[in-house]
Order: sequence, then C-alpha cells, then structure tokens
Amino acid sequence: MTASASHLNFDIEVEAMAKDQVVETTVRVRYAETDAMGVVYHTNYLIWFEVGRGEYLRQKGSDYADLEAQGFCLPVSEVDARFIAPARYGDLVTIRTWVGDLRSRSMTLAYEVVMQETGQVLVTGHTRHICTDREGRVRVMPREMRRLLGGDTGR
Amino acid sequence: MTASASHLNFDIEVEAMAKDQVVETTVRVRYAETDAMGVVYHTNYLIWFEVGRGEYLRQKGSDYADLEAQGFCLPVSEVDARFIAPARYGDLVTIRTWVGDLRSRSMTLAYEVVMQETGQVLVTGHTRHICTDREGRVRVMPREMRRLLGGDTGR
Amino acid sequence: MTASASHLNFDIEVEAMAKDQVVETTVRVRYAETDAMGVVYHTNYLIWFEVGRGEYLRQKGSDYADLEAQGFCLPVSEVDARFIAPARYGDLVTIRTWVGDLRSRSMTLAYEVVMQETGQVLVTGHTRHICTDREGRVRVMPREMRRLLGGDTGR
Amino acid sequence: MTASASHLNFDIEVEAMAKDQVVETTVRVRYAETDAMGVVYHTNYLIWFEVGRGEYLRQKGSDYADLEAQGFCLPVSEVDARFIAPARYGDLVTIRTWVGDLRSRSMTLAYEVVMQETGQVLVTGHTRHICTDREGRVRVMPREMRRLLGGDTGR
Repeated sequence: MTASASHLNFDIEVEAMAKDQVVETTVRVRYAETDAMGVVYHTNYLIWFEVGRGEYLRQKGSDYADLEAQGFCLPVSEVDARFIAPARYGDLVTIRTWVGDLRSRSMTLAYEVVMQETGQVLVTGHTRHICTDREGRVRVMPREMRRLLGGDTGR
Repeated sequence: MTASASHLNFDIEVEAMAKDQVVETTVRVRYAETDAMGVVYHTNYLIWFEVGRGEYLRQKGSDYADLEAQGFCLPVSEVDARFIAPARYGDLVTIRTWVGDLRSRSMTLAYEVVMQETGQVLVTGHTRHICTDREGRVRVMPREMRRLLGGDTGR
Repeated sequence: MTASASHLNFDIEVEAMAKDQVVETTVRVRYAETDAMGVVYHTNYLIWFEVGRGEYLRQKGSDYADLEAQGFCLPVSEVDARFIAPARYGDLVTIRTWVGDLRSRSMTLAYEVVMQETGQVLVTGHTRHICTDREGRVRVMPREMRRLLGGDTGR
Repeated sequence: MTASASHLNFDIEVEAMAKDQVVETTVRVRYAETDAMGVVYHTNYLIWFEVGRGEYLRQKGSDYADLEAQGFCLPVSEVDARFIAPARYGDLVTIRTWVGDLRSRSMTLAYEVVMQETGQVLVTGHTRHICTDREGRVRVMPREMRRLLGGDTGR
C-alpha cells in the first residue's frame, strides 16, 4: 500500500462514493487521551479508527465480536495516518469510516476524524486488514460479511 | 510519503547506514498492551516507536524534554506501519530506530521492532515530525539538535 | 487492605443520596481496552471513572476544561476499585457517578460501572481529588464550582 | 474512604519484611503516559504496578505467562493507590513490589513507585488478586507458585 497513492485514491473514492456508505461515529476526548503537549496523543486517533470500523460493521448489520465467535479475525496489517490539526480534552470528534477496498482475503478502510462542530479535518488515515483464523492463517472472508460490506457490487 | 516507496528507500537506507547510527532499545511486553486476540494491540507498537526515538535522542546526546524546555515540539505529522508478526505478553522486543530524512523544519524516523531473542521482524514503520513552537507554528529545528542528529553531514 | 471498610461507607452514602444526583454515561468497550484474558484490562474502568466525572460536571453545568482555563486542577489523589465481573469487547457499559464528599479543598466521587442491558454491577470505586493551581499548590475550590456540585447544602 | 487505614497496615508490613523480598523494576516515563497537566496520567502508575508484579514473579523464578499456560489467571479483584507526587516525561521511576498477603486462593501485592534518582515516593498502592481458571471460577493457587512467592513460610 502506498500512503500517497492511497491518499490520491482516497480523494477519488470520496467522490465516487454514495454518502450513505460513510458511517459516522462521535466520541468525546478523554483526559487519558491527552499528552503533555496539551493535545490528543497521536496513537489515540488510531484507536478511534477502531471505534469507527466497529460502528461501521454494526451499522451494516455485522459485528466484529460475532466474526470472532465464528473463528475469524481481521488483524490490522498496515496503518497510515496524517495528523493535520489537534483535538483537545472535551472536544467532540466525529470519525468518518468507509471501505476503500474489499477483496476475498483482505480489506482496506479509510477514515477521517473531524471536529464535530466545525467539520475541520483533524486526521486522515487507512487500515488494511487480513482475514485470518484464530491461529493466524490467512482465510477467505465469510461471504455474508463481504456481502454486508458491499463486496458483491464489485467495489 | 509513500509507504511502499518508503519501504523501498527504507531497505536502501539500511544498507547505506553505518551500524552505529541505529539505536536499539528493548522493552518487555506489558499485559496492558495485549488485546483479546492474545497479542499486542497494534497501536502499542507505535508507542514503542516513541520509546525508540526518545532513546535515539538520548544516545545522540540530546533529550526531547530539553527540546520542549527550549520551546520546541516535534509532533508526529505522519505515521505508517506494517504489522508482520505479533508479540505476546512477556516477550522482550527490541526497537531499532534511525533517521531516514532530516530537513530544517522536519525529520523522518524509521523503525523496526524485532524479537530480541531471534531477531524476527515484527513491525516496520516511519514517523514524520514537524518542528513547531508551543503555539504550533512551524519552526526551523535548533541547529544544535540537527547537528546531534547528523544533519550537518548532508543526509 | 481495608477496601471493604470503604465499601461500607460507600453503601451508607448511596442510601443518603437522592437518585437525581447520580449521573449516568454509557460507553461501548473498545478492542484497545481488552487484554489477553479476553476481557477489559482493569485500569480502563478507572479511565471510565474519568469519563463519568467529566459528564457529571457537564450535566451540573460545569466543565473541567473551563476549570483548568481558570487555573485550577483536580488531580486524583486517591483511587480505589473493586472488580466484580468483567466486560468484553462491544459491551455497552454505564458509568454511574455521584459526589460522595465535598469539602473546600477536596472532593470524593463514587462510581458504579454496570452492564447497560442488565444492570449487573461490574466495578465499584472512588476517586479523591485535591483542588490545586497549575503549580500544584492546594487551593480552595472556586465557590461557583462547589455550588454546582451541591456543596452549599452542607454535604 | 479508608485509604489511610490501609496505609497504616501497609507500614507495619514493610517493617515486618526482610529487604530482599522487595523486587525493584525501573521504567522510563513515556510521552504516551503523560496528560495535559504535563504529568503522568494516574492510571499509568497502576500499569506500572503490573510491570512490577511481572518482574516480581520472574525474579522469584515464576512467570505469569507460564501460569496462564497452565490454565490459571490472577485477575485484579481490588486496587487502591495514593498519588503523592507526579512523574514527568523521561523520568526514571522505580517500582518496588512485595507480597503483602498470600492465601490459598488470593494474594495481595503492595507497591511503591519512587523517583529512581532521589528515592522520593510518588505513589503507593495495593492490588488484590483472585486465582481463577480460564472460565473465571475461583481456584486454589498452584502449590509451586505459592512456594515461590514465600507462602510456605506462613506469611
């Protein structure tokens, strides 16, 4: 995955995507998530990406806990993020999540973290996930899950 | 920054670099760093990158706390990481850190996290940092710091 | 260790309090908050206590960020918690927060974390806070804040 | 809240203990562990308690990972802590860990976090642990482990 290429694709994808394929989740910044610079410590945005994709699956009618109960995992195999502007304690931030790429054994999700009130973009990024079984062997993603994520439309 | 391109550069850089420019730091995996998959949750490797760059500065004779005391910050502006194999509770992992790119107002650090005992590569990645003042305005990095990081050699 | 003694006091306080003085906040368990036992790592419940007291202040018309902007801090000086039953990834848990004790220079908050759906108690605990200025010197809490927290009723 | 009472017991225990039963572990404060007050966020001291007890077991010839491999867990059932003075980014802090109480199905560990250089006490606390199997049922702790922890001496 090339981060800059993906950032290019990323813009094209946003354009190409119907608005209803973006799932939004809002969280309030915890004091525990700030650091001595007075702003959110950078890895916490990546934890919010995780919050975003959990909600994405839930809103599409799936659930990551169910997937694990069926013996599948979707560990993060790659991540990239650009930190544009900081959030601070108490801020309400919205995580916008969508599917960038969906294959039989892997998927890429794209994220934007924005200030809820102003829409200002704080962070953009992607995570790539490989579908594995509990022993870490690569597996084909369950068909039902791919269908829920829109994989039968060729995207 | 293109993650795959940077991973290409990354290999070239390793070759081109004298061994003493890589700083190694070892940490033991905490239970708090594991997740329900039984392995280290992915963002904790990025916190170890931070541990690695802190030690890098210390071994070069600098200190991030001193830099902040002088009114400078080096916030992370970009990060990418590839997760190749997992670490588990109690494992000793070594973070290998080096400077990938050093400019007047920014720098890129490169990292490998390996199993201390076997040298197996678990995670690779980069962070890009912008030098700012306390108000977040971009600033030229203090000359002394650039010198310590090897910036006067043209790299 | 006299945690049980503190839990005795705790029950008396609950009895003495009007129901409307308990503020409830619900969070969903993040994967990042789980550990290799498959359940929430214990210190994350204490971070939820922080989420609970932030909402407590907001619902009472105050805000911790405002308090800091006025030059006051309420650092945690003591914490205790009893872990009764575990939460897991994806669970909705409700943090119930109330004021246990309010003095001119300190306050104690009490918490219960319960499963949203069943009301099952997962964790109980307390935090004690000292009011300080930015340099860490003990200070009398602003009168306005004490009023909002109910301190003018002699509790 | 009777945290001070527990600290009374605590002092008596310290007196009664031979010095060689205290295990010391040193960690350097990570930026990720600081918060917007410029100091270590309070729950991170409790994660250091976990680091301390992991090292305690290792120095006594045991290992928590081995214990789990045998099907046992030692989840935290209670915790208390007093926060006396703060640590900051880059500080070297030493966690002093010892067994406060050891029974057939539970144990209490005591901790002091001190500044490595000066010995100044930053935080004191305790954790209580119940021995369970993987399904969370209370179990008698393996005899070998109790022996290593000194439980055959009647302490």
